[in-house]
Amino acid sequence: MSVFPIVFAQGSFMHKDKLKYPFEERGLQFGDGVYEVIRIYRGKYYLLEEHIDRLYRSLSEIKINFPHDRDDFIHILESLLTKNEMKMDGKVYLQVTRGSAPRNHIFPQNTEPNVYAYIEPAARNMKEMENGVCAITHPDIRWSFCHIKSLNLLPNLLAKQEANENGCYEAILHKDGTVTECSSANVYFVKNGNIYTHPKTNGILHGCVRIAVERFAENLEIPFIEDAYHVGDIKDADEVFLSSSTSEITPIVKVDDHQINDGLPGPITRKLQHAYALDAGIEPIIPETLTEA
Amino acid sequence: MSVFPIVFAQGSFMHKDKLKYPFEERGLQFGDGVYEVIRIYRGKYYLLEEHIDRLYRSLSEIKINFPHDRDDFIHILESLLTKNEMKMDGKVYLQVTRGSAPRNHIFPQNTEPNVYAYIEPAARNMKEMENGVCAITHPDIRWSFCHIKSLNLLPNLLAKQEANENGCYEAILHKDGTVTECSSANVYFVKNGNIYTHPKTNGILHGCVRIAVERFAENLEIPFIEDAYHVGDIKDADEVFLSSSTSEITPIVKVDDHQINDGLPGPITRKLQHAYALDAGIEPIIPETLTEA
Repeated sequence: MSVFPIVFAQGSFMHKDKLKYPFEERGLQFGDGVYEVIRIYRGKYYLLEEHIDRLYRSLSEIKINFPHDRDDFIHILESLLTKNEMKMDGKVYLQVTRGSAPRNHIFPQNTEPNVYAYIEPAARNMKEMENGVCAITHPDIRWSFCHIKSLNLLPNLLAKQEANENGCYEAILHKDGTVTECSSANVYFVKNGNIYTHPKTNGILHGCVRIAVERFAENLEIPFIEDAYHVGDIKDADEVFLSSSTSEITPIVKVDDHQINDGLPGPITRKLQHAYALDAGIEPIIPETLTEA
Repeated sequence: MSVFPIVFAQGSFMHKDKLKYPFEERGLQFGDGVYEVIRIYRGKYYLLEEHIDRLYRSLSEIKINFPHDRDDFIHILESLLTKNEMKMDGKVYLQVTRGSAPRNHIFPQNTEPNVYAYIEPAARNMKEMENGVCAITHPDIRWSFCHIKSLNLLPNLLAKQEANENGCYEAILHKDGTVTECSSANVYFVKNGNIYTHPKTNGILHGCVRIAVERFAENLEIPFIEDAYHVGDIKDADEVFLSSSTSEITPIVKVDDHQINDGLPGPITRKLQHAYALDAGIEPIIPETLTEA
């Protein structure tokens, strides 16, 4: 995957080869910053408002004084698309760190945040969304403020890597017996026609696609229940699925050694995938099945 | 504080202004790396072996394949001193990330780690070590693998900043009522002639100066007890002190609103400070007092 050549960095647009990080960058030395990954379909951002809302919340939580107001920053993100003549599917990665200063845990005074954003092409994971994926369960060893979309992602990496080494797509994290989310996605369980997912506490990331899933469920009159789901109950779920900007809505059909139900994506997952496609204005996952639904 | 001009980066020595980070750096995007800060006294590293031991342990824990063997890397660190004609007090900051690759949680294949190291001048905090400092207590919101000296330091920053905004030097962290350590130092309590500190679990960083403190205590025949210390018992401690490469051994004389004992650094803290100075071959903190001891 290559990156589109024009990036936004240090207050202006530049060719990516011109990018030069400052010597002592708090993002690099402390993970002192936050980020977003926003999906682009056919050259347009999807769920942009939700991502911007969360970005400002994350910045506020760690007290970074962002130099751009909302309209200004949305304009920058739109310009990034225009300047790269971006008309296909992809995603933007954007990051805001507290800035550069001699290394010290204490926040520096009078330091401007470093903002950088770039576009990557990104195809949709059609095969995974059609057939479903497998997941492992894994202890949630993260910090207490997972609602902040911070650059401190090492525990997420370790869990995702463990999943990968076990031939799986994701790791379903659990703390004190309760499922929280996946290493880079929210996770949901369907039981007796209800959708269960972890409440929006500080223990999970408040996913932008999660907001959409809740909205789709409401429209489809499927009860959306924010409550603890026990890791031991996963194997008895009727359906399991995950959501994220990268994975959209992806069925999970096997968890550890347990096949979920008949091992095929379930009807509620399919309905939500269909709603997602309609909402985003993109191709549905399995047109023939969804026509029947 | 300025940085000495010659840094080690991307496999060679270069002027710091020539340093150019790669575009997608896993240290910057995920905090996917580890670091060390090693104290330099009069142009010589202090506790170098202990730092190198820990560096290799941290690298192994997060499965980074470091390209340098131990002797090779020590030679690089020694060369860094020579090339900068470093003969004063200071510290080296060194960092190893998993490297650069298109952004993906899963570890990249065939990617070389990025190593960078530089020297900073650093005076000893004589005033703080002489008079003692104050600390706040603060919940320990960090992840479960604090024994890894990783770049995921946001919770540490937030705690240290909170201490700073309260006019204090450090935050004493506690989890489920038990004191773990400070935001960037180990912490110890003296009660009835015994030193208490948190055992070397995954819940704390295994400080290099902590190893030295244990050795000094043994030599001084002061019992060194690795056991839980309750946050509620801090105010009744006879002495409180912290240790780190930057802070050496620093007395804590006030915690939140409670003065510790008579508000002066205690005799066991003083003995340990004296042992530290002897071990490092540097000036003792308060010569006249220590001569009497």
